[in-house]
This record gives sequence, C-alpha cells and structure tokens, in this order.
Amino acid sequence: MTTATRLHDAIAELAGFNDDPGAGGITREVYTPTYATALERVSAWMEEAGLEVRLDAVGNLFGRWEGADPEAAAVLTGSHVDTTLNAGRYDGVLGVVGAIAAVHALRDAGTAPRRAIELVAWAGEEPRFGTGCVGSRAAAGRLERADLDRLRDRDGTSMAAALRDAGFDPDRLAEAVIDPAGVHALVELHIEQGAVLEQAGESIGVVEAIAAPHDFRLTLRGAATHAGATPMRLRRDALAGAAEAMTALERIARESPSGTTVATVGVLRVRPGAINVVPGEVELDVDVRDSDLPARRQVVDAVLAAARAIAERRGLELDVAPIVEDMPVACAPHVVDAVEAAVRELGLPYRRMISGAYHDAMIMGARVPIGMIFVPSAGGISHHPDEYTAPAELENGVRVLAATLARLAA
Amino acid sequence: MTTATRLHDAIAELAGFNDDPGAGGITREVYTPTYATALERVSAWMEEAGLEVRLDAVGNLFGRWEGADPEAAAVLTGSHVDTTLNAGRYDGVLGVVGAIAAVHALRDAGTAPRRAIELVAWAGEEPRFGTGCVGSRAAAGRLERADLDRLRDRDGTSMAAALRDAGFDPDRLAEAVIDPAGVHALVELHIEQGAVLEQAGESIGVVEAIAAPHDFRLTLRGAATHAGATPMRLRRDALAGAAEAMTALERIARESPSGTTVATVGVLRVRPGAINVVPGEVELDVDVRDSDLPARRQVVDAVLAAARAIAERRGLELDVAPIVEDMPVACAPHVVDAVEAAVRELGLPYRRMISGAYHDAMIMGARVPIGMIFVPSAGGISHHPDEYTAPAELENGVRVLAATLARLAA
Repeated sequence: MTTATRLHDAIAELAGFNDDPGAGGITREVYTPTYATALERVSAWMEEAGLEVRLDAVGNLFGRWEGADPEAAAVLTGSHVDTTLNAGRYDGVLGVVGAIAAVHALRDAGTAPRRAIELVAWAGEEPRFGTGCVGSRAAAGRLERADLDRLRDRDGTSMAAALRDAGFDPDRLAEAVIDPAGVHALVELHIEQGAVLEQAGESIGVVEAIAAPHDFRLTLRGAATHAGATPMRLRRDALAGAAEAMTALERIARESPSGTTVATVGVLRVRPGAINVVPGEVELDVDVRDSDLPARRQVVDAVLAAARAIAERRGLELDVAPIVEDMPVACAPHVVDAVEAAVRELGLPYRRMISGAYHDAMIMGARVPIGMIFVPSAGGISHHPDEYTAPAELENGVRVLAATLARLAA
Repeated sequence: MTTATRLHDAIAELAGFNDDPGAGGITREVYTPTYATALERVSAWMEEAGLEVRLDAVGNLFGRWEGADPEAAAVLTGSHVDTTLNAGRYDGVLGVVGAIAAVHALRDAGTAPRRAIELVAWAGEEPRFGTGCVGSRAAAGRLERADLDRLRDRDGTSMAAALRDAGFDPDRLAEAVIDPAGVHALVELHIEQGAVLEQAGESIGVVEAIAAPHDFRLTLRGAATHAGATPMRLRRDALAGAAEAMTALERIARESPSGTTVATVGVLRVRPGAINVVPGEVELDVDVRDSDLPARRQVVDAVLAAARAIAERRGLELDVAPIVEDMPVACAPHVVDAVEAAVRELGLPYRRMISGAYHDAMIMGARVPIGMIFVPSAGGISHHPDEYTAPAELENGVRVLAATLARLAA
C-alpha cells in the first residue's frame, strides 16, 4: 500500500466515526464512545506502523518508534482526532494519520532515526469543555485537578466525569505531564484554516510563530428612545457608536506595524433590538491576534482609545471587560529550519508564515521547541462540512513532515 | 373636583389595570379581560361627563356630546388605553382621560358647542397583532374581514378570535367604518415620545404632519472564515461592511434636505456569531422616517446606493427586502390653526413640529382632517415604566385641547 493510499483511506475511514451524520459534517467530541472507537482504530494503525502504543492519564495516545540512541531526546509529532460540532474531515486528523503515513514512508525508505520519533493524538483540542487543548494542556502541566471539575461541556458534564466515564482516573492527571528534557522538537502538520497559501498558489506554510488572542467585550450604553420621535441630533444611539468603533478597529488592525495583526468583532448584541427603537445598549466581543505581542498590544490600546473617544463624543457609557489574553508562541529556529530545509529539498512552493489559529503545538510551545507545517485550505473554510484540501496537497504535507522528522531525528 | 384632580386620579386609576404589575410597568393589551375592565371604567367616566356612550363593532369606545346643530359634522378627539408590554402610564391614556377632563372644563366654563364633540378610545393602537392601530384602521375602512384571521398575536391568537372572546362579532367589522362626511376635525392629545420639547423648554408641540416609516432589511453576505487565520486583506467580513453602511446611514440622515429625516438600525443579526469567526452574514433592519416624502425617498435611495457601493468594494453580496412603506400624513390647516390659536391664547411656549411616531390620528388622517397636540416626555422615554410627563405639563395639554375643541366646535 502506498503512503498516499494509506493517508486517504485513513482520513475517509475516520470520517465514518460520526455522532451526527445527518448534519452533513462530522461530530466526534473527545471522550465519547464514538471518539474512543476512532482512537482504537488510530491505535491499531500505529501498531501496524511498528510503533509502541500507550494511552496516558487523560487519553493522549502515543506511538513510539525507538531511535538508535535511546538516551537522546525524542522528536514528537501529532495533532488530534476530535472535532467540533458538524466539522470537516481534515482539521487535526491530517496531523495524526499524516504522521503515521510519514512513519511508513520513512520505514519504506530505510530511514533509521537516531532519536525516537513519537506520534501523538492529543485529547480534546476542540473546546468540548469550553477550553480547548485539554490533552496538551495536561501534558504541559497547565491543568490542575480542580480544573477537571470546573470545566464543563454544554450538557453540564465535567471533564472529570467525562474522563471517568471513558475509563480514566482524573486523580492521575499529573502522570500526563511530559518532561521537556525528553523532547528535542515537536512538529505538527495541519491544514492552514485560512486562505493565504491558496491565494498565493503555494503548497506549504512553514510556521514561524503562533498568534494568540487578546479578547475583550465592549459594552456601549446610550438611550433607547423612539426611532421616529428622536431627531438625529438628540440621539444617544449605542449601535451607531458601535458602528464607528468597528470601522476604527478595522482601520487600526490594517495599519498595525507588524502587518500580521487581525482584529474581529464576531459577536454583537443589540438591545432592545426593535426596529422602532434606537439601540440603548450594544455588546461587542472583540478578538485581536498577532504573533507579535507589542504590535497586538498597540492595536488593542489604539482600539480602546478610539472606543473611548467615540463614546465620549456621542454621550455613551463604555465598559471594557476582559475575556482572554494568551501569549503568542515563537517556533524554535532549529525546528523551523528543519521544516524549511525539507520543503526546499522537495522543491515545493512555500512561505514562512504565522498561524492565526490555536493549536496543541502552541500549548506545548511554552515548554518544548515547536514547529508547524501547513497545507492549503480551500477557501480558508474550516470547522465546517465544506473543509477541503486536495489529495495532492495532503500528500505534499506528509512528504514534508517525513523529511522534517528525518532531519530532526538524525 | 377640579379638572386637574380628575385627570391625575384617572391616570393613576388606569395604571392599576395591569396584567404584569411585578415587571414595574403596565401591561394592558387590547381585548384582554383587564383591558375590558379598564374600558368599562373609561365608559363610566364618559357617562359622568354627560356623554352618550357606545362601543362599535371592534371595540372602539365613543362618548358623544351633542352640539347645538345636530346636522353639523362632529369634532372627534381621543387616543387609546391599551399598552405595549411593561409600558408607561401616559402613552394613549392622556389623550382619552385628557379629553374627558377637557369636556368637564368646557361644561364648567358654560361652553355650548355648535358641533357635536365626540370622544373616542381607539381599540388596539399598540401592535398586539403585529400591526398597530387596528381600531382606527377599522374605522378608516382599512381592515378587511380576512385581515382579522390573518393578524395574530405572539401566542398565535387571531384578532378574530380575540374579538369573539371579548364579545364582539368579527363579521360585523364593516359597521365600524366612520363616514368622513360626519367629521369636521379629529384632534389627538399625546405625549411627544421624544425629547424635542423638553430640550427646548417648550410646553406644547403643534403637530403639522405625522412622519411615516420606510422600513427595509439589508442582508450582507461575505465569508465566515477563521478570525485568527484570515489576514485583514483576505476578509469578506459582513459585519465590517455593515458597520461602514451604518456610519453612512447616519451621515446621510443628518444631511437630509428636510432636516427632519431620522434613520435607525434597531435590529442587527450576526451569523454565525462566534468570537473566533469572521461574520459571514449580517441582517440590518433599517427604519427611515420623515413627514417629507421626497426627502425620505432621497435618504432611502442614498442609503441603498451607499450600501451597494460598500458591498461591491468589499466583495459582499447585498440583498434588500421591503418591510413597510407608509405614507406620511399632513395635518389639516384648519385644525393646526385652531391648536396654534388655542396655545397662543393660553400664552404657552410652543413649537410647530412633526410627529415622528405613529398614531391613530395618522390612520384617520387619510380620510378626515386631523391635528395633534404634544406635551413633553421626560428624557423622550416612552413604552417603558420610566415614561413621565410632569402634572403641570399634562394640565397644559388638557387646557390646549379644551380651547382647541371649543374653537373647532364653535
């Protein structure tokens, strides 16, 4: 069986483990029976690839190819096989089945790595319990036992209860922590989830840094007066103020000194929300991301200053409430260099770029040297049944991953 | 009992007919048992004022003071005693109990009108069945029998069923139509529901015209892509486009040649509505009002042109769907003149102005000569428990109404 066949068959087969096939996409949340069955299949594929398989205390699945030097720090690679609701078939899955295909390709080529190559399928990258990357957070020592009781899914089930139901012991959480000294590099293959590569006609993104969000909520309060009886000059229209603030936000992000800042208002609530009432209150949930922390800070500060000036001029009250403020992670130069050398060796069109989306690698990046390999996403669509990457592009990703692993493990 | 005491006591007493006192405001929807009890009280007050009372086929309550010349067309005055949900105590009520107080004042002053003065409490000015002014629409011949089955409240009860439950026969709808030849003038006393008089320190608004809305829905469609992974230059952000369109709408309305156009986005829906997804679709419900129809048309055209240009520049699709397009109504010069002469006689500070809000008078205005008298609304607040007009301002309104009726009925 060729590497390509293995890859495409595995992606297709995993797509069949689906709790909501009627919706058109794939629903496979972590710790569900459907997820466990899918993970058993992945485990069997890892064994077929000659890997030594183990499941850790929170359900992260590892498959180890021992190296010639068992004392040397290992090269980790992997992603996740859980999904959001009604998702696509590539997000996460590519990084796991692609790594298995890469191991087969390396074995077929007679590669004998000096360092161990360890594959991983992280548990719960998607935020079933509100917070994403629970498996890699546990491995990075960034989950406490109390978090497992606190984190709950939309049905109110705690992560601790979900672990117990899936046959794990939440009190053994600490056993999942990975010793950073044992990791030489972690590299993750993933679809881009954006349209940068597609638009540029490039096959591979060599990720240099992973952007992190600074999220906050702006609440503007004016006066909910009659839309007919209130002349324009007497209005304190919270939505008109929000519109001006959103226009400022877009301009400020475009003018960011890093050139990589993105700013989005994805959630907007209008109260009272009647066609004949001037909006008295508007909430905006703002997401600002960059891999360049000073640039991100500068954009957030400029947005807040603009919002304050707009509110003051319009006689509106402004509240600012924090949501989340995560730290961007830079990829390790030796991992980035290994990926870039692999791409050049294969002669593929590529670019160095940042990842705007979160990944398990970002979580681990605070403790171990990381890198990421992106392949194009058609139309930038992700977390949706229409998520798509052409077979040849998937195969390119696996070839780059295999060549990168060979370099890092040599 | 003084006119003032009568007025304030009646307003306070009607406020007690309330289906949701726990909410803090007043809920008294048309055709409910609570509404019927309130209307019986109004009927008793009309009889105390020496009026001949009758209820028409849709529950409009009339009280007639016969004039010296029974052949002469009558002077109508009134408003409504139904409310929206959790409303204030003055909207509508003032025009009914104020008219009763005015009749008492005219009788006390020994006035003997040549024309009949007929008071009315219109049924269902507030939109329990989606459409407002159902009582005055029936009187104006603008409701069909089929409408009574089609119009439904939020519980799915049709207006026909509600009429039957309240003891009326929907098949007698046509009997409610008023012959315009019998109406010399209709004048309605109402709170402003805006803050124009309050801001100017004036007691009375002499209404020259009633603005009507042109409402439509704009739908902008872009691409719902990842908020982190989509660079600013690759976005098709429907909400960013909507923000720019709302800013244009506000500017265009402010620059309207009439100086009286108002434009509002009261409803805005964002899809998918997640903090980490660029909005792919936004709906805006737009309300543009003016008493000046060409100015309103010019503003609507300019807003649509701006929205189209913004959508094109941003690669968004734009749909425009009609909601409602009502005709503004001009008040009759002889009614406006009578109101203005009455205000001048009383020496009250006043202004000629337009009504931005809908009223029963607007519905009747297509068939009979109308006018309106406004008193200030504190902060322009209406349809809210905080709706307030100071007692002295209410009394001024009644004095102007009485003097206007005396002039019109002479």
